[in-house]
Amino acid sequence: LNNRAEPSRSGKPLLERLAGSTAGPPPVWLMRQAGRYLPEYRELRASAGSFLELCYTPELAAEVTLQPVRRFAIDAAILFSDILVVPDALGIEVRFVAGEGPQLEPVRTRSRVERLDPDRVRTHLAPVIETVRRVRADLPAKVALIGFAGAPWTVAAYAIEGCGSRDFLEARRLARSQPELVAELIDVLCEATIAYLIAQIDAGAEVVQLFDSWAGVLPTDELERWCLEPARRIVTQIGAERPGVPVILFPRGAGVSYPCFADLGPAGLALDTTVPIDWAARSLSRPGLCLQGNLDPVALLGPEAAMLESARTILEATAGRPHIFNLGHGVLPDTRPETVSRLVSYLKSVEL
Amino acid sequence: LNNRAEPSRSGKPLLERLAGSTAGPPPVWLMRQAGRYLPEYRELRASAGSFLELCYTPELAAEVTLQPVRRFAIDAAILFSDILVVPDALGIEVRFVAGEGPQLEPVRTRSRVERLDPDRVRTHLAPVIETVRRVRADLPAKVALIGFAGAPWTVAAYAIEGCGSRDFLEARRLARSQPELVAELIDVLCEATIAYLIAQIDAGAEVVQLFDSWAGVLPTDELERWCLEPARRIVTQIGAERPGVPVILFPRGAGVSYPCFADLGPAGLALDTTVPIDWAARSLSRPGLCLQGNLDPVALLGPEAAMLESARTILEATAGRPHIFNLGHGVLPDTRPETVSRLVSYLKSVEL
Repeated sequence: LNNRAEPSRSGKPLLERLAGSTAGPPPVWLMRQAGRYLPEYRELRASAGSFLELCYTPELAAEVTLQPVRRFAIDAAILFSDILVVPDALGIEVRFVAGEGPQLEPVRTRSRVERLDPDRVRTHLAPVIETVRRVRADLPAKVALIGFAGAPWTVAAYAIEGCGSRDFLEARRLARSQPELVAELIDVLCEATIAYLIAQIDAGAEVVQLFDSWAGVLPTDELERWCLEPARRIVTQIGAERPGVPVILFPRGAGVSYPCFADLGPAGLALDTTVPIDWAARSLSRPGLCLQGNLDPVALLGPEAAMLESARTILEATAGRPHIFNLGHGVLPDTRPETVSRLVSYLKSVEL
Repeated sequence: LNNRAEPSRSGKPLLERLAGSTAGPPPVWLMRQAGRYLPEYRELRASAGSFLELCYTPELAAEVTLQPVRRFAIDAAILFSDILVVPDALGIEVRFVAGEGPQLEPVRTRSRVERLDPDRVRTHLAPVIETVRRVRADLPAKVALIGFAGAPWTVAAYAIEGCGSRDFLEARRLARSQPELVAELIDVLCEATIAYLIAQIDAGAEVVQLFDSWAGVLPTDELERWCLEPARRIVTQIGAERPGVPVILFPRGAGVSYPCFADLGPAGLALDTTVPIDWAARSLSRPGLCLQGNLDPVALLGPEAAMLESARTILEATAGRPHIFNLGHGVLPDTRPETVSRLVSYLKSVEL
């Protein structure tokens, strides 16, 4: 536990909520709260090099992380980075092509998987860890710092497919036809992800969120093997090695299988836009489990009254249990920053 | 009811199952059972004109519909057509560009919606109706004929977006910002869809399936308005105008909201690949409701033993209740026809 930043739970609404408190209005942060919809981000982005260079430049990445904290009365900053820095660190070539999404060197053979080097995570991702350290030092006292990583299946899906995809057919096909090979890849990714998250925690991340953005493309039996089992391992190992640090799972698209993720014992469970919030409040009822979500980001592009009504529905359904307000997916690039301000101030002032 | 083909339920396993029978092995058909994975389809397709011309040429479309019936011991033929023939009939320009997916003239304004002409459905889609008539005349005695249409939301999503999409953001945005306009479009599509399905029934379709392929992009409150309400209207009106003709709903991605579709009272409910089959058998328990699905099409690309094991899991979970075996999504183009043969003969011979 050397080098670990001191926990400072008291006084941070997000951490109190993740520890089971229900006092006061729910804390709020938004997925992709830093990014393209903010003019200050676009300005900084235009002067930086590639997207990965931005992620690997602590001064700039810390600035981007802090931008939404300066603008909005949000309760958490989330490290500005990308889930694909882990495959990049492992030695898989990753390129972000503007307007096309990420391109990766496809990983589909045993010999390629065997050449992946989990030890590179600590060295290659040292600049990201330095970003965490800087952000933590500069955060207002009440604002918590969230670290994150992509879940092994989601990262494996990109690495196998070689790019983003609607259905990740090549990844699912390989998982079905060569499960031992994919198990080996998932295993390497689990190890790298745990090391990476622990490094973030030791540098000052007070919460970590695991993004399984493509859990929703898998049928049940494969969800168990490729998503639930790795999440169990990560939650358990972080719980053992850094006890008390809350883990939030975000198994996007898990639908009917959300309760299986609740059963893994994370502090928080992030709901995607399609999860009926009243069903979640009823069915994801492990004592103390903090729900997070799940306003549709599209609501921020529509009329304000309808957006606030949708937000209110979420607050009403989750009243009386630990809940962190968030979107069910990331802030959309067309969102007006004023709309985010309006939403956050509504959440801070609403009386149910 | 003039011109209506006589129902001939007795002796057709698919129709008996949809009427609540559980006797014998489950009937089987596969979504996209006609199509690119079949060499005889590819040959015919190469000699035809555009994809829409193929859909509008009864001789060829009937031949394509019948191809899988000749090859496999399946219990149903499904009309070979496309969900986008309805917007095409309404006057929205639709083009199928090889390798790019469908391109549509985007429909985003009131004046454009008001110029859509539901009366064109019967005339413009007369060749499709003629295809139904021909197929029905040529079908083996035990094989049922399934007609289909896209659900209003899914068709509206394509029409608004102007193309396929991972998240149908423009469609969701318009639904949120101009709900009255989208309601008007959905209304026209409901009317056109009902007229189209009834024409298919009168020409010989013995079952109709409503494909809501993009139900899964909507949050709950919008799912109610854009998917459940139109499905309710369609199920109710077909039930009233053509009593006894079973309707199968396929709200792909509906997840936790599947029970709401069961509550609409369709004869059948098609499950996508992500629905846990044991959960479905337990939770979608309206007496007599026939479940359909839901093997992952990717299973047909992997080892045979694993495919048959997955199929068996589905049979075991649905034993003792009405169930039609199917995939949870369409047959993939890389599927070997021999694999489909193997799957079908397994299903016909397995003892649980």
